[in-house]
Amino acid sequence: MAKITKVSPLAPAGFPDLPVIDGVRFATVAAGVRYQGRTDVMLAVMDPGTSVAGVFTRSATRSAPVLDCQAKIGGPSDGAAAILVNSGNANAFTGHHGQTSVAKVTRAVSAATGVPVERVFTSSTGVIGEPLPHERIVAKLDDLNAALKADALKEAAQAIMTTDTFPKGASARVEIGGKTVSISGIAKGSGMIAPDMATMLVYIFTDARVEQGALQQLLGELTDRTFNCITVDSDTSTSDTLLMGATGASGVDATGNAAFAEALEAVMLDLAQQVVKDGEGATKFVEIRVTGAASDADAKAHGLAIANSPLIKTAIAGEDPNWGRVVMAIGKSGAAADRDRLSISFGDILVAEKGWVSPSYSEADAAAYMKRQDLVIAVDLGLGEGRATVWTCDLTHGYIEINADYRS
Amino acid sequence: MAKITKVSPLAPAGFPDLPVIDGVRFATVAAGVRYQGRTDVMLAVMDPGTSVAGVFTRSATRSAPVLDCQAKIGGPSDGAAAILVNSGNANAFTGHHGQTSVAKVTRAVSAATGVPVERVFTSSTGVIGEPLPHERIVAKLDDLNAALKADALKEAAQAIMTTDTFPKGASARVEIGGKTVSISGIAKGSGMIAPDMATMLVYIFTDARVEQGALQQLLGELTDRTFNCITVDSDTSTSDTLLMGATGASGVDATGNAAFAEALEAVMLDLAQQVVKDGEGATKFVEIRVTGAASDADAKAHGLAIANSPLIKTAIAGEDPNWGRVVMAIGKSGAAADRDRLSISFGDILVAEKGWVSPSYSEADAAAYMKRQDLVIAVDLGLGEGRATVWTCDLTHGYIEINADYRS
Repeated sequence: MAKITKVSPLAPAGFPDLPVIDGVRFATVAAGVRYQGRTDVMLAVMDPGTSVAGVFTRSATRSAPVLDCQAKIGGPSDGAAAILVNSGNANAFTGHHGQTSVAKVTRAVSAATGVPVERVFTSSTGVIGEPLPHERIVAKLDDLNAALKADALKEAAQAIMTTDTFPKGASARVEIGGKTVSISGIAKGSGMIAPDMATMLVYIFTDARVEQGALQQLLGELTDRTFNCITVDSDTSTSDTLLMGATGASGVDATGNAAFAEALEAVMLDLAQQVVKDGEGATKFVEIRVTGAASDADAKAHGLAIANSPLIKTAIAGEDPNWGRVVMAIGKSGAAADRDRLSISFGDILVAEKGWVSPSYSEADAAAYMKRQDLVIAVDLGLGEGRATVWTCDLTHGYIEINADYRS
Repeated sequence: MAKITKVSPLAPAGFPDLPVIDGVRFATVAAGVRYQGRTDVMLAVMDPGTSVAGVFTRSATRSAPVLDCQAKIGGPSDGAAAILVNSGNANAFTGHHGQTSVAKVTRAVSAATGVPVERVFTSSTGVIGEPLPHERIVAKLDDLNAALKADALKEAAQAIMTTDTFPKGASARVEIGGKTVSISGIAKGSGMIAPDMATMLVYIFTDARVEQGALQQLLGELTDRTFNCITVDSDTSTSDTLLMGATGASGVDATGNAAFAEALEAVMLDLAQQVVKDGEGATKFVEIRVTGAASDADAKAHGLAIANSPLIKTAIAGEDPNWGRVVMAIGKSGAAADRDRLSISFGDILVAEKGWVSPSYSEADAAAYMKRQDLVIAVDLGLGEGRATVWTCDLTHGYIEINADYRS
């Protein structure tokens, strides 16, 4: 893991004021897993009756905690539930030692909190390939259990940070049948970020009741439009985890409720965009809107080809309206494109259409636009109704500094 | 196009002494297409009877010259043949103007040289989206035709350079039936380099006779193992072109000859590796050997996932034996992998095996190894017989400087 540098220029003004979620309590501690002088373990305990759903990395080399979570999601739903997260060590590619560590930590969480071990979920993030010093975590569990309280989401967001330069949180409130339910989420992630869930940990809580199967399905669908539409560097982590707990403490059933789904999507998108805004070395936040593609899948392929192109990301860093590189990325994406039907805009500036630069295009206007911090690149393929939006950041000397100049 | 910087530290000692190929002559000129004070147009004219084969970018936004070449390859094989290449302007994404420019240039080449227009092939490399000032090229054609000579391959290699820091050439001689045939090739390329033919132009000539259909098939097969196994930045150009002319001037028929195919593959691999060694900002040359994969295609997918990972490329730049990132890349590649059967070596150093760091692994030894300029990362999946080797370079501040700090 690289050193923590100054806060991203794209960071929000401050951590948002997240609603407390009835039925879930948090505690954090400095266990010295790897980092010194900061919290690095977070425990969340959810009341009996909570539905837990999860979405995980598709990496073939996924970590021991991810494998353990995947085995448990959708299992017994009685009793309380717990989430234990450490930063500093990913417990990934640690052979059978990895499974042993997960077993020791989950059993210790169960012993300290009374949560059945089948309902204890863990995540680890940080260095790959080093054994997790699980005994340092186990030693702190009674302290963590004693410190649990409802109003500690910000502290939880801080404890799970690695190369993040700011803690990430988002929330929403929804009216359902005259009553209000709340959704609060936290996330971490800044490098190794690509679709299919990158080095990213996300925990979302709601006091609504949502049936587990429905929650699982909803989470998967919304992930495709949020966390799977962001990319920092095209690299995918071994450890990505999104866990959501619906405690039902509000007494309101949101299963199948459209307003709830919309609010949850907004929270997920907000967190996903915050991860991009904390992209390693990022100085620009870029939205890529693709329309007119032959299918939604084609639109996403074009969007990600643009978002992952090192030549486009460096051009954005250099504030260069280099639309030729956008043409190149569309050409290489593998999805359908017709050079002569394509149009490209930077913000409101129509750059290219009908296979060539637009007659109205002004290089000076485009160069002025590129100086903004938030940019929109819009591409219309002119082929069909397929559309997708993806988000990324630029590729700067900062990324090289964080990942090359520092010896891990 | 970025400014030409100092010569790559990975460059060969000098341009090789390429054998003259009977039946083909070259000329170069400074036409001022974009660059000043250097040659930027190259003409090659091949005698009647020459078989011409070609392999081209698969980009959906390929350039007008590429489309014209593709329409001509495999067509009439009578008469002489010609290749005209300009640097500085790619004539890509230039709408119908692009086709007009190709038509004007090919007709002018035909008029000046007497080569039938169906046998005139052109390539353009440089800035995308600007009209090609074809009249500057047309104005020089009589001079070019008058200057044609056999011994000018180095000058040809220099005229086609864009961001290249050195001209690229390679050759081989093969004994067939007691007689010697020669193969000489030149290439350009340093950025926008990825499989499926990146911003790369390659021209190879031989005095052997090879039947056109056989030459075309051989070239395609060998491209998959050479030029399609290199990557600098995962970006694919609109303009990639590999053209080969077999003049037959030696009187030796090499159609179907295994030794000839082997020699040609060696020339192609040499040129491909020189392109990587001129990768923008490159300071390390990296060979990635993948064995034990479920299939050759899986092996190539793993190799390219490693070669294209920004986190691995920056770790190499930082001389960091960060094998955890190799595990990550294997996991994200989409090809089959079993964490617990995987082994990873850096050079002769066994780093990881059986899902964890090797007991013999020494971080100090690995760190010392990473200081070398030429590196080998070997991965065995332990699953089958699939194998592939790919080549790449590191990702450095130099890449960012070339592509972001410079306004095109």
